[in-house]
Amino acid sequence: MTALARLGMVSDFPSEAQTNVSTAPDTAEASKDYFVVRDGVKFAGMHLLVDLWGASRLDEPAHIDAALCNAAVAAGATILHSHFHHFSPNGGVSGVVVLAESHISIHTWPERDYAAIDIFMCGACNPYDTIALIKQAFNPSSVQLAEHKRGLVG
Amino acid sequence: MTALARLGMVSDFPSEAQTNVSTAPDTAEASKDYFVVRDGVKFAGMHLLVDLWGASRLDEPAHIDAALCNAAVAAGATILHSHFHHFSPNGGVSGVVVLAESHISIHTWPERDYAAIDIFMCGACNPYDTIALIKQAFNPSSVQLAEHKRGLVG
Repeated sequence: MTALARLGMVSDFPSEAQTNVSTAPDTAEASKDYFVVRDGVKFAGMHLLVDLWGASRLDEPAHIDAALCNAAVAAGATILHSHFHHFSPNGGVSGVVVLAESHISIHTWPERDYAAIDIFMCGACNPYDTIALIKQAFNPSSVQLAEHKRGLVG
Repeated sequence: MTALARLGMVSDFPSEAQTNVSTAPDTAEASKDYFVVRDGVKFAGMHLLVDLWGASRLDEPAHIDAALCNAAVAAGATILHSHFHHFSPNGGVSGVVVLAESHISIHTWPERDYAAIDIFMCGACNPYDTIALIKQAFNPSSVQLAEHKRGLVG
């Protein structure tokens, strides 16, 4: 069961003025169980909470957008939507990349060289495959990571 | 230090055709430390991972959008952007509400009556204040919750 199997037609429901409708490849399988089995347990998806310390370029929304999208693609994910905000006066950035396989979010505190990232991926995608590109993009002096299997049913 | 203190001017950087620029009240204070202190420890924000089981209305993107926006407002958060996708054939919904105080995301598996929600709020907002409205909106038979203080510096 691949992550894309969860997808057939995809409809966007933005809460803004415009309404977009996009489609993705219809690779849905007959089974209605989209949970994954890995290491002998069944769950909905893997959720990583990643804290970067001593990181750089945390006040550059275009760089952050590109970095997270590249990381998503490296993990084999399909990007559906991304949106970033740039705050002043501290230059912090908040944003998210919505994936067919869940999401990547980031919130940065440039004044502390700190960023809080979370990477949630279901299906065949492995969120650990994003970590090398994230480290390359932000060059943190340390990384703290917590892993949660969401929807774990054993 | 309120969450809005992190905000001055807000610029949107959507990775789509349109580029929006919005503004929010400039309540920034002179201090450059936007971490919060609560219960004697300093950290960036509180992150809740909320798993709903036996939940209903998980295949209704408009309902989910409204429910999460209402929950955000109930916690005193400021909504900057929201975006939801509706998958077929399973009817699952993925989406996010980007807040001035971080974000709320959801991914649903209606075929299992399961939803994975995460609520990250910095500043004065308390993500626990969203839980009652989330339970009211989706009527889960059980809720599992994990709490992380992100960016904890002691």
